Amino acid sequence: MTPRHCFFVSDGTGITAEAFGQALLTQFPGEKLVHHTLPFISTTERAEDAAQIIRRVMTTSELQPLVFSTLIHEPVREVIVQTGARVFDLFSAFVSPLEEALGQSSSMTMEGWHGNPGDWIYAHRIEAIEYAVAHDDGVRPKDLDRADVVLVGVSRSGKTPTCLYLSMQYGIHAANYPLTEDDLEGEGLPSVLEGCRDKLVGLIIAPERLSQIRQERRPNSRYASLAQCRIETARTETLFKAMGIPYLDTTAVSIEEIATTIIQFRGLRRAF
Amino acid sequence: MTPRHCFFVSDGTGITAEAFGQALLTQFPGEKLVHHTLPFISTTERAEDAAQIIRRVMTTSELQPLVFSTLIHEPVREVIVQTGARVFDLFSAFVSPLEEALGQSSSMTMEGWHGNPGDWIYAHRIEAIEYAVAHDDGVRPKDLDRADVVLVGVSRSGKTPTCLYLSMQYGIHAANYPLTEDDLEGEGLPSVLEGCRDKLVGLIIAPERLSQIRQERRPNSRYASLAQCRIETARTETLFKAMGIPYLDTTAVSIEEIATTIIQFRGLRRAF
Repeated sequence: MTPRHCFFVSDGTGITAEAFGQALLTQFPGEKLVHHTLPFISTTERAEDAAQIIRRVMTTSELQPLVFSTLIHEPVREVIVQTGARVFDLFSAFVSPLEEALGQSSSMTMEGWHGNPGDWIYAHRIEAIEYAVAHDDGVRPKDLDRADVVLVGVSRSGKTPTCLYLSMQYGIHAANYPLTEDDLEGEGLPSVLEGCRDKLVGLIIAPERLSQIRQERRPNSRYASLAQCRIETARTETLFKAMGIPYLDTTAVSIEEIATTIIQFRGLRRAF
Repeated sequence: MTPRHCFFVSDGTGITAEAFGQALLTQFPGEKLVHHTLPFISTTERAEDAAQIIRRVMTTSELQPLVFSTLIHEPVREVIVQTGARVFDLFSAFVSPLEEALGQSSSMTMEGWHGNPGDWIYAHRIEAIEYAVAHDDGVRPKDLDRADVVLVGVSRSGKTPTCLYLSMQYGIHAANYPLTEDDLEGEGLPSVLEGCRDKLVGLIIAPERLSQIRQERRPNSRYASLAQCRIETARTETLFKAMGIPYLDTTAVSIEEIATTIIQFRGLRRAF
């Protein structure tokens, strides 16, 4: 199958063009696509370099390349359009209707919605990321005062990536606590979690999937055995139910979906 | 100033609608905006709930709310349109032109471009995130075989958030090594880094900014003093130049921009 080349072109990092372009392209699963990101195309000179890359690809492929552009400035964009690639101009399609709806002209400058270095949003985000790294895999009681949410679940149920995502994407302070066998044999919650019951969200996972994930880490161990995974997951769910902790099953959902659900469960306030 | 309410409505997590909608809205810095994300609006029943939330806001605000929608299914979208809010339909604007360009119909299903649980892209991403957490703040020589890139810089120069971002966004294995005073007094590179010179990228930062960041962590310490920061930053840049390590200044750039530049410096292969 002949591959189709797709370019994500931006005067910034290209991350918005990628995210939106890729989301559109997932609607066409039959296509064999080759992705290229061309970031920091902020001048016509850089656009000429980008156009050269696109033209070079066009000489090797019979399929017209697709370009997803968030270029704001018309002269820069025009250099790309001149290549003959099929350009999807993500911004201009909406900027005019937005100008009309808001009754003001656009600033023609793009800034990150996660803040920029020096502003408080950015500082808050960095601080939340560092909090997540520092409070991964176990928490100390005094640290929990600053947590917005504390994820609880057995080893390898998805706590770490979810905490990091919550911090990076939303500036939420997320800690996590791994439930050990000792915790699961006791009555009630581990004492360290008693003081923050209203911040807890539980993660559960199907024992078959858990065993598979643990096998990759420690093959043929008791830890990874299906029997052990069955015991731990059953006890975990029993504990969550008994304690009234809201919980979700991470087996077949992505980090983004887990994070979004946690925000809904606890009505978390996002920093941005 | 009367605030304008903006809704990001999606049948999935809403992250694409947010990212793209917010990027558009940064063009209008004069507006006072209140953001609401309404995720998982996958049925007309859920759309009715969302519509009720939008209508409630409309009774309290004289400004027409804006809705950025990535809803795919027409009947679901129609429920939102009926509220009378100004709906920006992010997908349908591009799906038809894409269908025409690709010569096939869209699948009308959205899937994450970071992969879905169970597929290799997703597994790779989780693995890269865990690698970044495990190799934060110091590396062991044997671990570096698996690194795609190793960030080097003084304490608080931006290494940790950048490594995590590279892993989460691109599935890149990123380790980091903090340059200590001892490292900076010696000749050449710390020995642990000798074997991976072609993977190194240096981060530098203005001493004034570094001092400010360190003050927040350890106020009035020698560590945070401007004099100390000046010495460390000067020696770091000298080291990078002497060793031919590509480096960038993180003082005024965002995590996204640092990550994008690092990928360009080392021609890194992204997993997605």
